[in-house]
Formats: sequence, C-alpha cells, structure tokens
Amino acid sequence: MAVEAVLYRDGALELLDQTRLPGEVQVLKITDVDVLCEAIRSLRVRGAPAIGVAAAYGFRMAADAWQRAGGGSVDDLRGRLRAAGEALGATRPTAHNLFMAIERLRQVVDAPHADAPAMVRAVAAAADAVHAEDRALCAAIARHGAALLPDPARVITHCNAGALATGGIGTALGIVYEAVRQGKAVHVFADETRPLLQGARLTAWELSRAQVPVTLLCDNAAASLLAQGGVHCALVGADRIARNGDTANKIGTLSLALAAQRFGVPFYVAAPSTTFDLTLASGAGIPIEQRGAAEVVAGFGIATAPAGIEVYNPAFDITPADLITAIVHEGGVVRPPYGHNLPASLRGLPA
Amino acid sequence: MAVEAVLYRDGALELLDQTRLPGEVQVLKITDVDVLCEAIRSLRVRGAPAIGVAAAYGFRMAADAWQRAGGGSVDDLRGRLRAAGEALGATRPTAHNLFMAIERLRQVVDAPHADAPAMVRAVAAAADAVHAEDRALCAAIARHGAALLPDPARVITHCNAGALATGGIGTALGIVYEAVRQGKAVHVFADETRPLLQGARLTAWELSRAQVPVTLLCDNAAASLLAQGGVHCALVGADRIARNGDTANKIGTLSLALAAQRFGVPFYVAAPSTTFDLTLASGAGIPIEQRGAAEVVAGFGIATAPAGIEVYNPAFDITPADLITAIVHEGGVVRPPYGHNLPASLRGLPA
Repeated sequence: MAVEAVLYRDGALELLDQTRLPGEVQVLKITDVDVLCEAIRSLRVRGAPAIGVAAAYGFRMAADAWQRAGGGSVDDLRGRLRAAGEALGATRPTAHNLFMAIERLRQVVDAPHADAPAMVRAVAAAADAVHAEDRALCAAIARHGAALLPDPARVITHCNAGALATGGIGTALGIVYEAVRQGKAVHVFADETRPLLQGARLTAWELSRAQVPVTLLCDNAAASLLAQGGVHCALVGADRIARNGDTANKIGTLSLALAAQRFGVPFYVAAPSTTFDLTLASGAGIPIEQRGAAEVVAGFGIATAPAGIEVYNPAFDITPADLITAIVHEGGVVRPPYGHNLPASLRGLPA
Repeated sequence: MAVEAVLYRDGALELLDQTRLPGEVQVLKITDVDVLCEAIRSLRVRGAPAIGVAAAYGFRMAADAWQRAGGGSVDDLRGRLRAAGEALGATRPTAHNLFMAIERLRQVVDAPHADAPAMVRAVAAAADAVHAEDRALCAAIARHGAALLPDPARVITHCNAGALATGGIGTALGIVYEAVRQGKAVHVFADETRPLLQGARLTAWELSRAQVPVTLLCDNAAASLLAQGGVHCALVGADRIARNGDTANKIGTLSLALAAQRFGVPFYVAAPSTTFDLTLASGAGIPIEQRGAAEVVAGFGIATAPAGIEVYNPAFDITPADLITAIVHEGGVVRPPYGHNLPASLRGLPA
C-alpha cells in the first residue's frame, strides 16, 4: 500500500508531516487555513499535485470550520472562502497545480448556491473530486509510463515524485510502482536532492517501505553514475510545464537532464495535465521561488558554512524541452516537437 | 595572508584539521606516520597537492622521530621509511601528487648515504623541496591563470582548490587571489560540494577570510546559475590528469563541466604538473576512490535517510577533455588538442 500524503477525514485535513521523515511518521490534523499555509510554505506537504489537493481541501476545511462555528449567510461563507483562496495562492509561486486547484474551487465558491449548506456541500464535492482525479491521473500516468521501462530496469530519479508528492501513487514513482506490479525488476537510484534532501528522506523512505530496491547518491554523483552506463532512463516529476515542453522541477533536474543527454540516457518527465501551463510559451515565463539561506547553511541543525555567507538557493530550475525525451501525462506519452504535440495531446482530456 | 594547510616545524607536521572548519580552527601536530595516514584518509588534510606535501613531510617526520628515539643504521632507517612510504601510498588512490611525492622521497631513501644523519638530512631537504616547489607551482599557475579573468569577473568553482588544498596559495583559488591582487574585482560562486561540503566549509571560509566576495550554492543549483548568464568562467582543480586531458577531480566536477558547456561558459582546470599522469592514455585508467555510506546518510550528525540504505559515493569523477576549455599549469595555459599540447607543454619543465 502506498502511503497517503494528504487525506480529508472528520472535518480535518490530515497531512503526513514530510519535514519529519524518515525519522518520525507524524500526521498533522489541520482545521485552520493559516496553519495549512504554513505547512505548504515550510514543505510539510510538498510536490505539485499534493499541494493542489491540499489547497482544494483547504477550501473544504474552511467551509467545515465555518459551519461548525455556527454558519451564516452564503455571502459570509463566500467571503471566507475567497480569503482562504487568496492566502493559499500566496504560499508558493511555482507549482501550477496549486493555482489550478484554487481556480477550480473559486469557481464553485463564485457560483450561485441555494443556501450556505448547499455551498458547503458543493465545495466538499469539488475538493473530493480534485483528490479523486489526482489519484486517477497518477494511475493513468503509471500505466502509460510503465511501458517505457525494460525488464529489468535501472532508473534514476530526482527529488520525490511519489505517493508523498501527490494524492495518489505518484507520477515518476507511480510509473515505478506500476512496472513493479507488472512483474518488472526495477532498481531506483535516488538523488538525495539538496538542500532539503527529499530524495534521501522521502523517495528512499517511500521506496524502501514499498520494497523497491533503491540506491541513494549525492546529486553531484548522478553524472558519474550515468557515465558508467547501465541506467536505462531518468524519470522525474514536474511543477510546471510550458507549452513548448520546458519544465520547471526541483532544483538539480536540469543537471540530471544534461548528464542524461551527454550519456545517451532517455530523460522522461511524468506529470498530470494539471501541471501544464499552456498560457506560457516557454519556461522563461515560469516564476522560480527563491528560498532562504538557512536551508543551505544550517539545514541539519549545525552550521556548515561561515556565518553570514551569501547564498543562492532557487527551489526549482527549468529544463529546456530539447533535453526531454518524452513527457508522460494521463493521456499518454508525448514526444517532440512538444510545441505541436503537447497541446494536441491535451485536447479532448477532461478539463 | 593565505592560510597554511601544511607546515613542518620543530620535528612535527602541523596540519590545519579541515574536518573541523569552519567552526573550529585547530592545528594538529603529528609525529607518527599512522596518525598522518588516518588524517589523510579522513580528509583532515585533503586536496591533491596538499596531500603530496603532507606525504613528503611524512618521510621527514618518520626520520626525525627515528632519530629522536636513538637512531641507528642507515639500513634500519631505510626500512622504516620504506614502510612509511607503503603506508602513505595506501591511504587514498586517486591523487597523483601523492604518488609523485612518495616516489620522489623513496628515491632519496633508496640512494646511497654516508650515514643515517646524512640520510635524515637528505630526506628533510627533499621534503622541504616538495613543499617549496608546490608553493612556486601555485604562484606560477596563479600568474598564468589570472590573465584568463576579465575585470570584473564572476567565476564558479567546485570543492576547494585553494590554499587549504595545496602547499601554497592554491590552484583554482590561487588564480582568484592573484587576479584580486592585480586589482580585478572577482566574485566567486562556490558549489557546496556534497557530501563533505568542502565548498561550504573550506572555500567559503578561505575566501571570506581573504575578503573575496563569495556566494554559496548547492551543487545542483550551478546549472541554473550558469543558465542565467553573467558567470564568466568555471575554475576547478584536479586530482589527476591523463595524457589526453581527461581530468579526475572532486565528484560533481563533471556536472559543472556539462552545465558550462551547455551555457557557453569557459571551463578551466588548474593544476601543477605533479597532477599529470602521462602514463595514462585517458581518464578510463584513473582509479576512483569509493567512500562509505555514512558521509551521505549521516554527514551532519543526524540520520538523513532510512537506516541501512545502499549508497553510491564515489569521491571523484572524470571530466572528459572535450568539456575543458583550457588547462592551466605552471608552464602556461594549454588548449586542445590536449593529446598533443599537454605532453609538449610539460617538456622542458623541471621534473
């Protein structure tokens, strides 16, 4: 059984606190939007699809809390939920799924409702649908992607694009889980993913728990590994994909893609259609979150650099489309030229 | 004033313990070869040229200790020093300078000597010469390399190829110090260099101490930085360079070189001729040290990955010559084709 990163139960949003893994498995029960915003900002929940699901549940949670506190008029609830949407939208700038989920819930909030309880029910249904769809998207991506893996397969991944990053079994790791389910022998090489070590803390934990063989390496050792041959492909997730296929993903993805190109290793991006931002012609338009110095100089509780040192710490980078062999979404496996094939592949999918 | 990584004084080898930087500046006074071997293996002294100097002093230290303990016959001393050479040669496999220094001292040990005190003096003179020459090599590299930097210059470096890595002012950072001395405004971007953070702990410390502006970044953020433009070149050291220019250097150098090539940033390697191994036709012949899992999974005193996880942790990688814009040694700046130009450039240098 894959782990559940995000769950809604008994009027509370349950988040597995990913900052405490792998040492501690602690579930947060959240009923307040400000607490959820802090959890998103500090990466207690992370991964673009999981952030989207958590944000959708943020609306549901706010509506439930409002009703528990006595309720009121439709307009009062609408005001509360619009404010919740504003707050959630200001947490992190890069993940497209966050804005897709917020926009979808905002449309429900803005629609006419007979009374407040009807609106509460509509919000709950929409949030549940975002989660259910994310599960289904993961499953479809996994099916399409698993066909790309030979048997046995050695794959390398970066950051965490697994069950912990989504509302389902994951994107890049979903493909691994599905290939394993089909009986393929898959060995995963997991980049540790500095500065926050999502690969070491989350991917290695999640795969070990699922009994998938995994080898951990420092990000900067990936090129050396690929140079030796024997790794069949790189599989990563995405936080936002532009119309031309340029992909924002966790910092370091670009380095992995450059090494994959140099050593002839196919480089696959796996992401649901909610990650695609067709309004952007290229990756140049994707906003990149800059994070604080502490993650780099004191990320482990001890100072690892001279005090006061200047730090460059972007959370994401842009992998140019020409480095990407294929993009897997719920509709199938898309190959270049992405400028034509990506929009075409997304037409006809449920919006 | 540049810091001194290695010094011989009053019958003891003084090493600045680099595992304790930047938190603590502690100088080890070593008089025992086994203690020195441990210091090399555990990276209390590191950097190929500094390891070479330390190994040469290892012979001097062993001879001095033997004399202090009462001395004896030339043959007895010769036996002791040969054993010291064996032990030093088994510490780390990649740095060529280590084997060059040991070979040089072994020739002194194997030569005929009138008596034991004469041999002690000859060993001391040879060890001092290795150190003095390394200082001079650094200075010459710095002069040649400084001409490659524009004013102002923004350079990126990996690991530590500074005063801490040599017996002098450094190789890659020696170039920076010399350019600054010439009045150029140089800003250094320092890769933190996982797993042991030599960039964060040593390069950032050394440059800050010398008042050279420095920005720290995770290794995996270098490609993102270079993609933005504005960095004029990459400058790195080397642990061993084959006849065709293939270069072994700290793990992650290859990734930096791939990013530099992609984004049109010149990639320079700086190393003394003692780093060149002309017996090797290519980098495929360079032995690469594999290190333990603890550096990756518990490098900061806390477990950052699930217990028992398999780890891939090579200490070095090979950057193919085609990614290297030029190699700077004490004889000048060498450009491709290295197969012809490297051996030619080394002819006529003092052996």
